[in-house]
Amino acid sequence: MPVPHLTTALRGPLLELETRILAAQPQIEHWFRSQWHQHAAPFYGSVDLRNSGFKLAPVDMNLFPGGFNNLNPDFMPLAVQATMAAVEKICPEAKNVLLIPENHTRNAYYLQNVATLVHILEQAGLKVRLGSLNPEITAPTELVAANGDTVTVEPLMRQGRRVLLEDGFNPCMVLLNNDLSAGLPDILKGLEQNLLPPLHAGWAVRRKTHFFDAYDKVAADFSKLLSIDPWFINPYFERCAGLDFHSRQGEEELAATVDALIAKIRAKYDEYGIDQEPFVIVKADAGTYGMGVMSVKSGEELIGLNRKQRNKMAVIKEGLEVSEVIVQEGVYTFESVNEAVAEPVVYMIDHFVVGGFYRVHTGRGIHENLNAPGMHFVPLSFESPCLPDRKGAPDCPPNRFYAYGVISRLALLAAALELEATDPDAH
Amino acid sequence: MPVPHLTTALRGPLLELETRILAAQPQIEHWFRSQWHQHAAPFYGSVDLRNSGFKLAPVDMNLFPGGFNNLNPDFMPLAVQATMAAVEKICPEAKNVLLIPENHTRNAYYLQNVATLVHILEQAGLKVRLGSLNPEITAPTELVAANGDTVTVEPLMRQGRRVLLEDGFNPCMVLLNNDLSAGLPDILKGLEQNLLPPLHAGWAVRRKTHFFDAYDKVAADFSKLLSIDPWFINPYFERCAGLDFHSRQGEEELAATVDALIAKIRAKYDEYGIDQEPFVIVKADAGTYGMGVMSVKSGEELIGLNRKQRNKMAVIKEGLEVSEVIVQEGVYTFESVNEAVAEPVVYMIDHFVVGGFYRVHTGRGIHENLNAPGMHFVPLSFESPCLPDRKGAPDCPPNRFYAYGVISRLALLAAALELEATDPDAH
Repeated sequence: MPVPHLTTALRGPLLELETRILAAQPQIEHWFRSQWHQHAAPFYGSVDLRNSGFKLAPVDMNLFPGGFNNLNPDFMPLAVQATMAAVEKICPEAKNVLLIPENHTRNAYYLQNVATLVHILEQAGLKVRLGSLNPEITAPTELVAANGDTVTVEPLMRQGRRVLLEDGFNPCMVLLNNDLSAGLPDILKGLEQNLLPPLHAGWAVRRKTHFFDAYDKVAADFSKLLSIDPWFINPYFERCAGLDFHSRQGEEELAATVDALIAKIRAKYDEYGIDQEPFVIVKADAGTYGMGVMSVKSGEELIGLNRKQRNKMAVIKEGLEVSEVIVQEGVYTFESVNEAVAEPVVYMIDHFVVGGFYRVHTGRGIHENLNAPGMHFVPLSFESPCLPDRKGAPDCPPNRFYAYGVISRLALLAAALELEATDPDAH
Repeated sequence: MPVPHLTTALRGPLLELETRILAAQPQIEHWFRSQWHQHAAPFYGSVDLRNSGFKLAPVDMNLFPGGFNNLNPDFMPLAVQATMAAVEKICPEAKNVLLIPENHTRNAYYLQNVATLVHILEQAGLKVRLGSLNPEITAPTELVAANGDTVTVEPLMRQGRRVLLEDGFNPCMVLLNNDLSAGLPDILKGLEQNLLPPLHAGWAVRRKTHFFDAYDKVAADFSKLLSIDPWFINPYFERCAGLDFHSRQGEEELAATVDALIAKIRAKYDEYGIDQEPFVIVKADAGTYGMGVMSVKSGEELIGLNRKQRNKMAVIKEGLEVSEVIVQEGVYTFESVNEAVAEPVVYMIDHFVVGGFYRVHTGRGIHENLNAPGMHFVPLSFESPCLPDRKGAPDCPPNRFYAYGVISRLALLAAALELEATDPDAH
């Protein structure tokens, strides 16, 4: 598979950053080993990265990754091997797995993701069946994915402290591929089975700002190891709560937060001689999938939004109202695939990078969010994140992808810390 | 990479065996998980398999595998990932590894194997240097592999209970790729460092019959899981000691052992209606690499060997005398690649299958040992051992390779039991 051509001539601090990452590979891997010795990796995750040439940073971390169908099928054995390693650690006695997908029954691409996940788990030697939270699923229902694969979803049942299927399929491991945006379902509360990821990873309770709090710590530690300014791998952010977009409550405070953050970014741009216009992304702190997202260059843009704009910001997936947002430093993407703006998404199972792809959006600018309707995918060549090319230039694809794998694993580690910090059973 | 075409029309019990292995995949993987929970996998290993159409069995298990250079480079990420998992379990604090290769300095293909191993360990994030047991290496020496890669071997030093290099390189992990046929070197005795595999895996103390004793147990357990006759995956064997081929001491006893084993095999051939002539392989119990090996169809063939034949049997690698042999049921290989007789060799790191190849010998028959001068290699396509094709026929290549991976992992598990049973520190 050809590596998508990176059309931008990258320059400035990034080459220096990548050079440092490559040179420090043994120290980095040793550091990761000791981190994973202390912190359990989430079962799986995907990370949205942005590469601005002067900065390479995660902008989102998904603990219920869809899109496994977009990975290069040639590298499926890596995903299978990583799954075997994960199951051995988490639940070595597992024979059966209950996979709980999103409630979509008509999104044929999402169903293809589910079919791919089932395939990976089966190849790792598990029996997999699908239990649905969707109240419309009252009997086993066969659904057809975009590529013609079929998946059968069945109604979930509760019995004591276990979930099972109607015919008694009673697994020791329950894997969520449903991000629980709509709330934590009672049927999943207080289970004695292994529920992965745990309930508090669901968007009903998770906050992006909790993740980035943890990422601040991870990025600081890692930057010390590499003797770099953590800002090169970490976007600034602030949280803003008590908002009501419909009634314009909190509008002024939000605008002030945006302006303060823009000023901080501008100071860094000045320090490093970066000739770009700072911008920030405003998005729901509990949100997902590109709803309730705005890209702005000053607080002023948020004052006096029209009704359509306010409605767009006010509601995310499952019709939930937005009252808390994260104001995040925007990272320009200087990458493009066939002249369309592109951002890499890296997939991990356990703490192993198992693939990735480019999210591409022809209709969007370099400062916009690409995880939105109209995007499409280009699978990213994979051998590289594992195998840096020590003889190649820092910006050759294998080395760029090694750096992507490193930053993605930092984000995964931050998610592990976040889940520890927010675990309701830890106290 | 194309899968080598298997020219033999396979028939009879093998299809049934493969069908059972495929159908039981979830049970098999669950069983393996519980086994690896109880027994530590050797760091790495390779298994020679023979597939006779009616029988699929390991005939040798190497704990110091050479030949990593023959694996398909496309699947290197699997080897890297498996190495990461192994290092995390065995020695998570490891930063540096000292790799001790064979003493060969002129075998350019072996040096290519060493260069490949160094590459795998480096990609897994370790600093690797080579320490040699060869007394001729008195200063760092650059050696050139067949493909032009270079490796630098350095003299080994001992300091207290550690081995290190002259400039003070002092790793916490020492990896042997030297099978210690010549004896256990004093410099490696009583180390406080992690020595992998352990000293008692060296051929100076290891015995093939100890391995096959352990394999008897593993094959019996696994056959119970599958409800099959263990003979379909396990070759009969006997040990014969006190031999001196030069003075013909023990000749009669060896011939009687051979005849008894042939009679046992013939009874099985009769039971399953197999229309082949039974044969056995006589080889050094402590031997390696195709020296001191004979294929015979009756004990008579061992009586009155001429001087040349006796000399060939009497001595193995490093000029050692053979006084103990294993008499092992011969398994015909019915596989061929481009009309040459072929046998699969499967490679594992930790308990993960990471690749394999066919050993091919144009000048040899289907009942002969192929691990001998004149052989060459055909890399075996790899995605298959991980990913059985549930919709394919039992003998389609992905499914055949899944079965090969299963039998190879049984052999690896037997090696784990063997090393536990023979561990001098365990008592």
